[in-house]
Amino acid sequence: MNYDEIIKNTLDEKRYLHTKGVVNTAIQLADKYGADKEKASIAAYLHDYAKPLKYDESLMLIDKFGIILDEETLENKELLHAPLGMIIAKYEFGISDEEILDAIRYHTTGKENMPLLTKIIYLADLIEPSRNFDGVDKIRELAFKDLDQALIVSMNNTIVYLIQKNSVIHSDTYKARNYIIRNWNRGK
Amino acid sequence: MNYDEIIKNTLDEKRYLHTKGVVNTAIQLADKYGADKEKASIAAYLHDYAKPLKYDESLMLIDKFGIILDEETLENKELLHAPLGMIIAKYEFGISDEEILDAIRYHTTGKENMPLLTKIIYLADLIEPSRNFDGVDKIRELAFKDLDQALIVSMNNTIVYLIQKNSVIHSDTYKARNYIIRNWNRGK
Repeated sequence: MNYDEIIKNTLDEKRYLHTKGVVNTAIQLADKYGADKEKASIAAYLHDYAKPLKYDESLMLIDKFGIILDEETLENKELLHAPLGMIIAKYEFGISDEEILDAIRYHTTGKENMPLLTKIIYLADLIEPSRNFDGVDKIRELAFKDLDQALIVSMNNTIVYLIQKNSVIHSDTYKARNYIIRNWNRGK
Repeated sequence: MNYDEIIKNTLDEKRYLHTKGVVNTAIQLADKYGADKEKASIAAYLHDYAKPLKYDESLMLIDKFGIILDEETLENKELLHAPLGMIIAKYEFGISDEEILDAIRYHTTGKENMPLLTKIIYLADLIEPSRNFDGVDKIRELAFKDLDQALIVSMNNTIVYLIQKNSVIHSDTYKARNYIIRNWNRGK
């Protein structure tokens, strides 16, 4: 399947360029950490595929496929495109590979005990070349040195940002962060 | 029961003075928000009663009373004195009042959907007169204006502090915070 063609025809230019950036970064990270580059590429191509969907369309699709989502995700349309992307990857593109589906599903929040490919897509999404936020260079550098360290710094940034906005913090993000820190402490 | 006498004989002077501060502040908050002042006083007196116990003694007591605790609490001896204080209040002092027990149990982490007395003890513990940390005056002021706002600011501080230390964030703390914020958003 020519994912590049499909994505180019579906997403607007800015989002297409972002997606291409994620694909390239994900392949580099897969190469560095010994993950499957083909899977990294597919997950990266499809990670934001559901983003153009409107909120009510998203809820309809979720209802149609009988997906059980937690309240935190249902309430936040910024988060909804990730599980929805997973649904579309599965039912529209016929992808059954659990690693790819998991990486798309959790690319925004992370989750407890993230598989390697999920970590890679989460970080590639944040650090691809067109991303430009305070501290991105530090995470870019860390991502190619220590994947877990890069994840912690990213999640710390996200949590502090949500605190400043007085926003809810998704439980999967806490769980992802706590899991990595707990593993470190055990290793000490 | 003369809790003042008991606490004076059990805790060192610094901790006794802290406890007296919590008692006075908790009674003031109970008065302000219409909670039971007698219950507030008892919960405040006993909230740190288990603090002098050593880690292995704490684990033995928890085992003896068959209390099920989450991994996050068991791993962190700073947190253990709260559920342990609840156990001692129940089995040593014969307290059966669920509001008092809950307030002692969750005074360090908070929890989802905190009862009024639990909110009061959580805050009184943080803002009693001998407490002195950046931002304490703001929380002191807020506590007597808007209990939930004061809780959010306190929990935000706690979470940012734990992030700076690269420490695990207890799930009860983020659930407590998310619950209050979600309720606000619904009220908007």
